[in-house]
Amino acid sequence: MAELGDLLARIGPPDEDVRAAARHRFDFKTKPRGSLGRLESLATGIAALTGEVVPSVGEAAIVVAAGDHGVAVEGVSAYPQEVTAQMVANFAAGGAAINVLARSVGARLVVVDAGVAMPVVLDGVRSLRLGPGTGNIAVGPAMPREQAAAAVRAGAELAVELLDDNVGVVGIGEMGIGNTTSASALCGALLEVDPAAVCGRGTGLDDAGVETKVAVVRRALAANPAREDDALGTLAALGGYEIAVLTGVILGCAASRRPVLLDGFITSAAALVAARIAPAATAAMIASHRSPEPGHRLALDALGLVPLLDLEMRLGEGTGAALAVPIVRAALALLDEMASFEDAGVTDAGR
Amino acid sequence: MAELGDLLARIGPPDEDVRAAARHRFDFKTKPRGSLGRLESLATGIAALTGEVVPSVGEAAIVVAAGDHGVAVEGVSAYPQEVTAQMVANFAAGGAAINVLARSVGARLVVVDAGVAMPVVLDGVRSLRLGPGTGNIAVGPAMPREQAAAAVRAGAELAVELLDDNVGVVGIGEMGIGNTTSASALCGALLEVDPAAVCGRGTGLDDAGVETKVAVVRRALAANPAREDDALGTLAALGGYEIAVLTGVILGCAASRRPVLLDGFITSAAALVAARIAPAATAAMIASHRSPEPGHRLALDALGLVPLLDLEMRLGEGTGAALAVPIVRAALALLDEMASFEDAGVTDAGR
Repeated sequence: MAELGDLLARIGPPDEDVRAAARHRFDFKTKPRGSLGRLESLATGIAALTGEVVPSVGEAAIVVAAGDHGVAVEGVSAYPQEVTAQMVANFAAGGAAINVLARSVGARLVVVDAGVAMPVVLDGVRSLRLGPGTGNIAVGPAMPREQAAAAVRAGAELAVELLDDNVGVVGIGEMGIGNTTSASALCGALLEVDPAAVCGRGTGLDDAGVETKVAVVRRALAANPAREDDALGTLAALGGYEIAVLTGVILGCAASRRPVLLDGFITSAAALVAARIAPAATAAMIASHRSPEPGHRLALDALGLVPLLDLEMRLGEGTGAALAVPIVRAALALLDEMASFEDAGVTDAGR
Repeated sequence: MAELGDLLARIGPPDEDVRAAARHRFDFKTKPRGSLGRLESLATGIAALTGEVVPSVGEAAIVVAAGDHGVAVEGVSAYPQEVTAQMVANFAAGGAAINVLARSVGARLVVVDAGVAMPVVLDGVRSLRLGPGTGNIAVGPAMPREQAAAAVRAGAELAVELLDDNVGVVGIGEMGIGNTTSASALCGALLEVDPAAVCGRGTGLDDAGVETKVAVVRRALAANPAREDDALGTLAALGGYEIAVLTGVILGCAASRRPVLLDGFITSAAALVAARIAPAATAAMIASHRSPEPGHRLALDALGLVPLLDLEMRLGEGTGAALAVPIVRAALALLDEMASFEDAGVTDAGR
């Protein structure tokens, strides 16, 4: 993928020696071996990713990217398109769920206009606008290939900028009326599964609405035949501006060897694209939660990721990613701070 | 239960009008109805419990109670009994997993010596000692009935003291070599299930160790025939000092109408006892996580509780409860702080 060559060249496999060293460190802590369960594998996985036996935690940041979707004209959402811009304004004003959760967990929030139909020019909204919403994927491509590459590059640059500014873990989220349809089309194409298996209720469709969505995704896949081994082309054909920017954020984190917390179904579509572009990027991905969207489970399974939380959340915006931030912090703190049997004078059972 | 009459008289059902008002409040927030999943039911449940439509959060505190078990002489643990006192010293020094997690989530930690074999006299350890470890339940009762009542009362008083000191949510945890055997016996007696169905690996038993534990629990149930409808008597016969104190903490929270975060299997045994003593106390209980101990699932099912987390943790100490604190805080913050559709100028889909 020539367009992203220098970025992709920096994405490598995790360091298994460092993982083993972190594992060894946990094994002499004052607790039965393995008794912290997935907190231990989470921390040792981050150690292997970063190359640090005791990774620094740093600040957490949530990047929530917004974009509009031409496919919204097909009636695939319970909400009108104007809600995308209204919700970006709500993010800027601090009243949305992701604002509350980012404050609650002490994470920085970065709101990105990746291509809302009407530009949202407000304090606290970063413009990485690629256009006034994508084309209608039911009849043609979402965006030109060069635009998809530019969006990925912009997302990667944003990630690197944050990671250079004391951020140690990045969560991703999205807003965009119609974007579960785009994500369903991407998953259908990349996982080669029938649209009926990936399409869910999104923000609240009824059965007829889901049927409409399935039919629209079928048209999108017919109008934009996937070229195997061309994930960037598939992203351009079926994706969205916010999905493309988040694909870049994921790749930027992977290139900088720092963890990225996925959120719901739409971010998992971005993760699938990122993993097709750079398979080693999966080592940087943490699945924060599982939503009820059927495609989310398929995407996480394909990525080999097991979510930390399963709280029936289906809001997006990065809300699941934010809720996982304290779990990541806790896991790294345990690896760093817990006493060893020897230090604490506690008898080890010796297994 | 005359011994606890005044405490139990204060435990009542949740306020369904307040739950409905909190539910209504969520339904006009800027998000699809119900899209925050279990965070919504968690927050509305706490509203109904406290009687406040927007409950105050307050500080979080974790009470970790330690006690020794006479049954340890039967070889039911992978660790020697001395580890109980050593770990209490580790709690006092700040090096155990629960210290790290309490710091990480910003919770106060209260360490209680409820009856360790050798008294642990250290700064930061609160003595509520009932005795130098319980009797061996394989041959007779753990403690006299009056002692169980005194332990429950002491735990309830501790909870009320914390809740009067700006604490809004209490997590509970325990330490006690042999205490999964006591918890297994309690669950076997209270749920009327076979010991083989409740006994697990505890801190790390092998198959032969689990068989030994099952045999010891059978002897305990034979030596201490349960009297139906006498949960306090069952607690005295098969429990532990830390389990009895935590039963009291749960009842104290319920009486004060504040939530209590359960931890692993042993705390679920305390919760079963509390629910038998005062069925309405279940409204105060939040299941923080599910451990791999088979009895934990049975106990939570019997209590009608669904855990928030399932991270394969099996350490105890209140580690799961601590990890759930940010989730509780987040749920209450969403109910409190999110903007409504009207306030934010966002179009509602009207369902």
